[in-house]
Amino acid sequence: MAYVIALDAMGGDDAPEAIVNGAKLAVEKYDDVTLRLHGMARVIKDMVGSCPRIDIVDADEVIGMDEAPAMAVRQKENSSLVKTIIDVRDGLAQAAISAGSTGAVMFAGMAKAGRVKGIYRPALAVVLPGRQKPFMLLDCGANVDCKEEYLNQFAILGAAYMKGAMGVADPEVRLVNIGLEKEKGNRLYKAAYELMAKDGGYRFGGNVEAREVPDGVCDVVVADGFDGNLIIKYTEGLSKTLVSMLKSELMSSFKGKIGGLLIKDSLRGFKSRLDPDVYGGAPLLGLDGLVIKAHGNARPETILSCVRQAREAIKGDVMGLVKKACEKE
Amino acid sequence: MAYVIALDAMGGDDAPEAIVNGAKLAVEKYDDVTLRLHGMARVIKDMVGSCPRIDIVDADEVIGMDEAPAMAVRQKENSSLVKTIIDVRDGLAQAAISAGSTGAVMFAGMAKAGRVKGIYRPALAVVLPGRQKPFMLLDCGANVDCKEEYLNQFAILGAAYMKGAMGVADPEVRLVNIGLEKEKGNRLYKAAYELMAKDGGYRFGGNVEAREVPDGVCDVVVADGFDGNLIIKYTEGLSKTLVSMLKSELMSSFKGKIGGLLIKDSLRGFKSRLDPDVYGGAPLLGLDGLVIKAHGNARPETILSCVRQAREAIKGDVMGLVKKACEKE
Repeated sequence: MAYVIALDAMGGDDAPEAIVNGAKLAVEKYDDVTLRLHGMARVIKDMVGSCPRIDIVDADEVIGMDEAPAMAVRQKENSSLVKTIIDVRDGLAQAAISAGSTGAVMFAGMAKAGRVKGIYRPALAVVLPGRQKPFMLLDCGANVDCKEEYLNQFAILGAAYMKGAMGVADPEVRLVNIGLEKEKGNRLYKAAYELMAKDGGYRFGGNVEAREVPDGVCDVVVADGFDGNLIIKYTEGLSKTLVSMLKSELMSSFKGKIGGLLIKDSLRGFKSRLDPDVYGGAPLLGLDGLVIKAHGNARPETILSCVRQAREAIKGDVMGLVKKACEKE
Repeated sequence: MAYVIALDAMGGDDAPEAIVNGAKLAVEKYDDVTLRLHGMARVIKDMVGSCPRIDIVDADEVIGMDEAPAMAVRQKENSSLVKTIIDVRDGLAQAAISAGSTGAVMFAGMAKAGRVKGIYRPALAVVLPGRQKPFMLLDCGANVDCKEEYLNQFAILGAAYMKGAMGVADPEVRLVNIGLEKEKGNRLYKAAYELMAKDGGYRFGGNVEAREVPDGVCDVVVADGFDGNLIIKYTEGLSKTLVSMLKSELMSSFKGKIGGLLIKDSLRGFKSRLDPDVYGGAPLLGLDGLVIKAHGNARPETILSCVRQAREAIKGDVMGLVKKACEKE
């Protein structure tokens, strides 16, 4: 199988250097991958050099990280981001990757690729490293005001992704909540529980208490976009704070200092298990095309990771599974 | 100054032993504290023995941890929990402490002590150890469906508490959110931001991103009860998961094992900084009386901590500050 993936060279804090270098890493690692690299040819041509299987597609506009998404996408038809998404719509690529702002990538996805038939709102989905196993959390911020029907669809989308891209045969989906019993939670979560218990299109395991989430007890965790985003950001902040508190505790005693030196490698291994790059970027599930949002400060390794992820999602026919699941709705 | 504090001997997973032993620790440590210990006299009398300044008040009913709060409080007028709260209402004690179920303590508080005039909904407030400084998070679960007016009142209550009980001269209050800008968040949080920015009764520092919360960047963090509870539970779960991942990483290499032995004391110090007992229990702010909910699996040290907390809140006139702040509303 050959994979053609569209990549936005100009999105991200360290674009285009980090993106181009990531593209090079990716085609070196995967000889069945061809990248359509959208960006200002005069800027990126020399960076790419004579690297095989990177096709530069000239785009003379760039959408900045701080631009208002809707306006920017409407006005910059010839931007690298918009052209990257259009590649997927027109069948020129099987997946699109951008490290541009979440709002702009989502808006371009909605405007140019559209939604899968029947889907109300696409969701930003993130694969997180649980202690027992990785799991997908969605929505991580695309929809801050949700209805229960959206949450049920997030479950369908997450299950299809874990099946196709991560090879989980029968993914278990749970609803994040403040208690296990079905009557727990606020109005939205109580209503979502009822819908999800009835749906039947996926394996629903009921609620998962927030304290169990990091343990990785199920394959898909559903939340509304506000709570999902809180969780993602809180995870990042708390992990950093805890590591820094541990370090200051170690530095406060002689034994701790020596011990700290000895555990340096372990700490590095520990941190790499928390590294968001391990699982790639955040797919925007529900769009009619595979679109992956890499995080804004994407490094070359991030892009490599996203290409691997896109490749697996194409191979596992995530889009086919999503559409099939949505037909039943 | 003399302090009289009512204590529910029968609430909590390890009641009455853990509670009685905690009461003994507390009167030993604070010779200006007298405890009114509510519980089945025939059960706790021998445990208390001849300990001074513990007055046993017989209560022949007990509200179990799993009972439906409203029903239990209504039917068991003579329970240790209800009598503990009534002590505060009747001026027999300046504060009440119970490790009973959150629902039952809140319901008993509402039914027997009532709300401070003008307060819509009391909040469950928790002091958390931030890296820079401790901060109060509220609401942590008393109100899962909130209006923006509630959130503004949580800010008022939290600021009064941090001033009175923790000695923070001019507490900075922030609204937890998914971004710093005032237009960030869902409908509820956007509306709350507007109200809070206008209120003027406390120092409002705008939004705090979830990733900054664990760092301890402000004194009071406001959330609705659903999100606050998610954060509390997620903090607990993630801390445990990270420590366990670090340990398994250490055990996977020889250097790590040796290092692990050397950092044992530091790890203990680190864990004690995260220990919820350090800051006592969760005050139910907005009730017309100082009521502190100790966590369900309270140990004797937990009760000692809650007594210290109650003593400081009485000393700093938290109730007076709360009422004064509410008058201005």
